Amino acid sequence: MDDIRIIELKESVIRDNDEEAEVLRRELKKNGTCLVNLMSAPGSGKTSMILALREFLEGKLRWGVMEADIDSDVDAGTLFSAEIPAVQLHTGGMCHLDAGMTRQGIEALESEYKDNDGFDLIFLENIGNLVCPAEFDTGAAFNMTILSVPEGDNKPLKYPLMYEKCDIMAVNKIDTLPVFDFDRQKAEQYAKLRNPELKIFYISAGTGEGIKALAEEIINRVNNWNRRGQ
Amino acid sequence: MDDIRIIELKESVIRDNDEEAEVLRRELKKNGTCLVNLMSAPGSGKTSMILALREFLEGKLRWGVMEADIDSDVDAGTLFSAEIPAVQLHTGGMCHLDAGMTRQGIEALESEYKDNDGFDLIFLENIGNLVCPAEFDTGAAFNMTILSVPEGDNKPLKYPLMYEKCDIMAVNKIDTLPVFDFDRQKAEQYAKLRNPELKIFYISAGTGEGIKALAEEIINRVNNWNRRGQ
Repeated sequence: MDDIRIIELKESVIRDNDEEAEVLRRELKKNGTCLVNLMSAPGSGKTSMILALREFLEGKLRWGVMEADIDSDVDAGTLFSAEIPAVQLHTGGMCHLDAGMTRQGIEALESEYKDNDGFDLIFLENIGNLVCPAEFDTGAAFNMTILSVPEGDNKPLKYPLMYEKCDIMAVNKIDTLPVFDFDRQKAEQYAKLRNPELKIFYISAGTGEGIKALAEEIINRVNNWNRRGQ
Repeated sequence: MDDIRIIELKESVIRDNDEEAEVLRRELKKNGTCLVNLMSAPGSGKTSMILALREFLEGKLRWGVMEADIDSDVDAGTLFSAEIPAVQLHTGGMCHLDAGMTRQGIEALESEYKDNDGFDLIFLENIGNLVCPAEFDTGAAFNMTILSVPEGDNKPLKYPLMYEKCDIMAVNKIDTLPVFDFDRQKAEQYAKLRNPELKIFYISAGTGEGIKALAEEIINRVNNWNRRGQ
């Protein structure tokens, strides 16, 4: 394969997304594939975090990435250059992915990387948007969000559903804490108002700080999920 | 008035938003009110920029701000504390404002600040979202977006419609250029691919750098708009 594959997603014709998401989740569990729905604001570091996780995931899991964007292939291109199995999904202007669109992406990723013989872990890098993606169940085993330090500590107050729906929050770009007015305690407090069970990790995708602990959490969740699937 | 007023917007029943936006724009022009639709990703500094513009707008224009959020009143509270006429609009979970919702906000702002005897300039601080708000004409005289340095220079490639629809782009947080991998030339090139007429300003709402030039541009546009309205 010489170039990243770009898949133009078709709008789903399914009326009940929640039902479709449950069906997809059951199928993935049966196949031993843990789908992680990664959501955040634009530019908070979704692709950089995935790149930083690579050294801790390689050799432990068969993993791949679906990069969803309205346009362009910059993110998938970045992963492709780093030899991470990836496809680029184009949503045709749509602001989120639903379960039907996610299914199209998984089928494309699996068909593109047939030699992989399946995936233990697939990241869906959702559209950079703190609003709409949180409203649609994609069929993921769990949801994850990134809050980057430059965005400010008050985002969980303004975009409540995102934090309610996520199991893990990675606070990224912590190497820039000295430059920005960001209060870790406030960020935690606001996020846990929405979801007391939220697990929080402090990372810098740039310097690598905190990435190992996050990778271990992800690997544990993948292993638990796939065991339960048997 | 002791507290910021919070307006729970009702979903518009209007079928043709473009037509409704044109009607609102004509009314605003007739009244000598220039509505500016300010859009960006979460945390790029919309409220901070408005606060920084204050010293250059005060005394020159009668101006006010509508802060649109899904939840919370942190932004409007900030402006209210700074004695800038402001109301908080809640969208009830919606990811954007249309012309009908904008009209409700303007009516609330005008009724809350009756002593003002109208506004020359009203900022609509739209929901932090680079996707959906760009799809809806709000009736604004012009659209403005902020790209903050930590988000990266490639955002115009990924969210093309936003840059296509905007007249002004403010590149914010330029004091953090040494900390981030952000190429000004690339950002300009990508943004102008979407809109060759886009006017670009480099600012730091934190340090105040570049704010005066941006304020002058806004004042000129307001004056031209209101002159044309006569």
